[in-house]
Amino acid sequence: MNNKKYMQLALDEAIKGRYQTYKNPLIGVVIVKDDQVIAQGHQDNFEQDHIIKKLLASLDATSLQGATLYTNFEPCTSFSEGGSCTDLIIKSGISQVVIGQSDPRGSEAIERLLDKKLSVNVGILETEAKELNKHFNYFYENGRPFITVKQTNSLDHMVSAANSPRVVLNNPAVINRIHLERADYQAIIIGSSTVIQDNPNLLTSVETNFPPIRVILDRRGRLINHQGLNVLNDEKAPTWIFTENLNLQKVHFNDNVRVFEMSTGTIAEVIDLLRAEEIQSLYVEGGPSVEKSFMDEGLVDAIVDYVKPIYFGEIGIGGPVPSRSLDLENISVETLDDNIRIAGDVKKPAKTTDTYTEW
Amino acid sequence: MNNKKYMQLALDEAIKGRYQTYKNPLIGVVIVKDDQVIAQGHQDNFEQDHIIKKLLASLDATSLQGATLYTNFEPCTSFSEGGSCTDLIIKSGISQVVIGQSDPRGSEAIERLLDKKLSVNVGILETEAKELNKHFNYFYENGRPFITVKQTNSLDHMVSAANSPRVVLNNPAVINRIHLERADYQAIIIGSSTVIQDNPNLLTSVETNFPPIRVILDRRGRLINHQGLNVLNDEKAPTWIFTENLNLQKVHFNDNVRVFEMSTGTIAEVIDLLRAEEIQSLYVEGGPSVEKSFMDEGLVDAIVDYVKPIYFGEIGIGGPVPSRSLDLENISVETLDDNIRIAGDVKKPAKTTDTYTEW
Repeated sequence: MNNKKYMQLALDEAIKGRYQTYKNPLIGVVIVKDDQVIAQGHQDNFEQDHIIKKLLASLDATSLQGATLYTNFEPCTSFSEGGSCTDLIIKSGISQVVIGQSDPRGSEAIERLLDKKLSVNVGILETEAKELNKHFNYFYENGRPFITVKQTNSLDHMVSAANSPRVVLNNPAVINRIHLERADYQAIIIGSSTVIQDNPNLLTSVETNFPPIRVILDRRGRLINHQGLNVLNDEKAPTWIFTENLNLQKVHFNDNVRVFEMSTGTIAEVIDLLRAEEIQSLYVEGGPSVEKSFMDEGLVDAIVDYVKPIYFGEIGIGGPVPSRSLDLENISVETLDDNIRIAGDVKKPAKTTDTYTEW
Repeated sequence: MNNKKYMQLALDEAIKGRYQTYKNPLIGVVIVKDDQVIAQGHQDNFEQDHIIKKLLASLDATSLQGATLYTNFEPCTSFSEGGSCTDLIIKSGISQVVIGQSDPRGSEAIERLLDKKLSVNVGILETEAKELNKHFNYFYENGRPFITVKQTNSLDHMVSAANSPRVVLNNPAVINRIHLERADYQAIIIGSSTVIQDNPNLLTSVETNFPPIRVILDRRGRLINHQGLNVLNDEKAPTWIFTENLNLQKVHFNDNVRVFEMSTGTIAEVIDLLRAEEIQSLYVEGGPSVEKSFMDEGLVDAIVDYVKPIYFGEIGIGGPVPSRSLDLENISVETLDDNIRIAGDVKKPAKTTDTYTEW
């Protein structure tokens, strides 16, 4: 069987659409006839033409007769103009559809294909297909965004020395890596204290129509007195302010800034607001108390720690220490000049039962 | 010039003697005539025959006439039986001596060779030669051992969870690495609390006649009540107890155990005792308060931190946080399964003046 070979080709196509599909999954499609690829392509936009529709339109009826379509993601049933991808497949003469993963939102596509006597194969390279759209899948399977806590710490787990001006940890390679990494998330969240202290832009270096939304957690409305901050003025990405202080809604910000009312000011409410906006992934940038809150609520799926080989010592400002232990798995380690990026997924449930070993 | 080529060959020879020469330097020697290597070898023992003597004895007078001897380390002048290496070189007919580094203890070898009209070349691949015998050189240049602090910490800089039995950090790959690393040091130091709590063996996995001496810092003499500890009974390496409690000297330990009297109990006095015993290198294994003392006294030359990707959280026991900042350079990063070894040399003076950078 060449199913895996062609599905891998579909996956290789799909990744080419990275940063372009926003809230829709990455999708790659390969159409094969007589063991020859007759068309291949990837989804490269959000809410415009679907790649299946485009590929089918590029081929004549004779070519499509009896062909096999490979897609890493279950075809849509809902996209209306000219018919859904599922409808178009049924009409096309294609006789077999091979699918990496089914749509976690629930879909009747497979059922409809089977009803029309097409041969359907689901779950080919499913692990790889699910990993490709990890955040998308996570959101629909768990009903909340995938949450990554980013830290930049010294070896003694300090975020900075308490000097003025602040001594921070990020070398240029780390900054570049973070600017790249942000593009993998639909939103960034940061506490108002940190925004006020550091006045960051929180932008991505990736060219994309969908830079992450900058969510400022500002329960008390401190931003009223800091309206000159970059994130409130640069208009380079949306900025959302989550606050309990309704006076913030009276401030005249530019159109990129939205103010959301909170009633409890809890992390749970933050998640509720993000879920309602269908934000699939969240990158928590700090400060330490915000990060600790996420950790303590059990709302962290992954941690990325940019470690600088320095000890700030007792004058430093401590990084987040959770109330309970967190154990990581799927560890990756990268060196960035003299800094080290350590990343991993949070094990669930947390495990700290390693037994004592002779040393 | 082929000087570098042959010196590199001498260095490659020298490293073969690793773990065998104890307090003497690693030495490799290559004898070259008419651009041909006629003998090469390395020092493979402590206080027995020197490699220069052995190589010269293996060659006849005709071969040696006009030959060039390469050695990474200045020849000895003191070893008496049959003459020092310098004397033997002078007698041998060798006409040129190429030396990587001079002896930091001070030596008249080069002067004597020059007096006898030999051609002498010093400083070929000197950086590499000095690095090869880094601890030896450090000891004689600074009058104290080279000191490395080893840590095993979580991402939140905890040495362990405060559970009972203790939850520790070391995976088998880390334990193996530490057992290997110990052999690079002439002594290990550890606080009595840690020895009592964990009862480690503190041995090396390297086969050597010179396993590191296990120094227990036991100011108050707590070991009197813990005479069953492994380090006091296994007889697999020397154990030295540094104490202010003279009752420890009355305990009947086995011959591998020595008790040293301290008068001030300070880290400075620890260093004085080690200097007097000509201990060239020290590996500080903990606990955190002992490590902090070394850091705060400015007595740390290198740090090795074995990082486990876990957060122990607030229940954890904190790793050492120095009073002042310490900045590292010459960083190396190794992954050991899911753990990470981060090592670096302490910058002198410590520098924490990175300016704040846009993020």
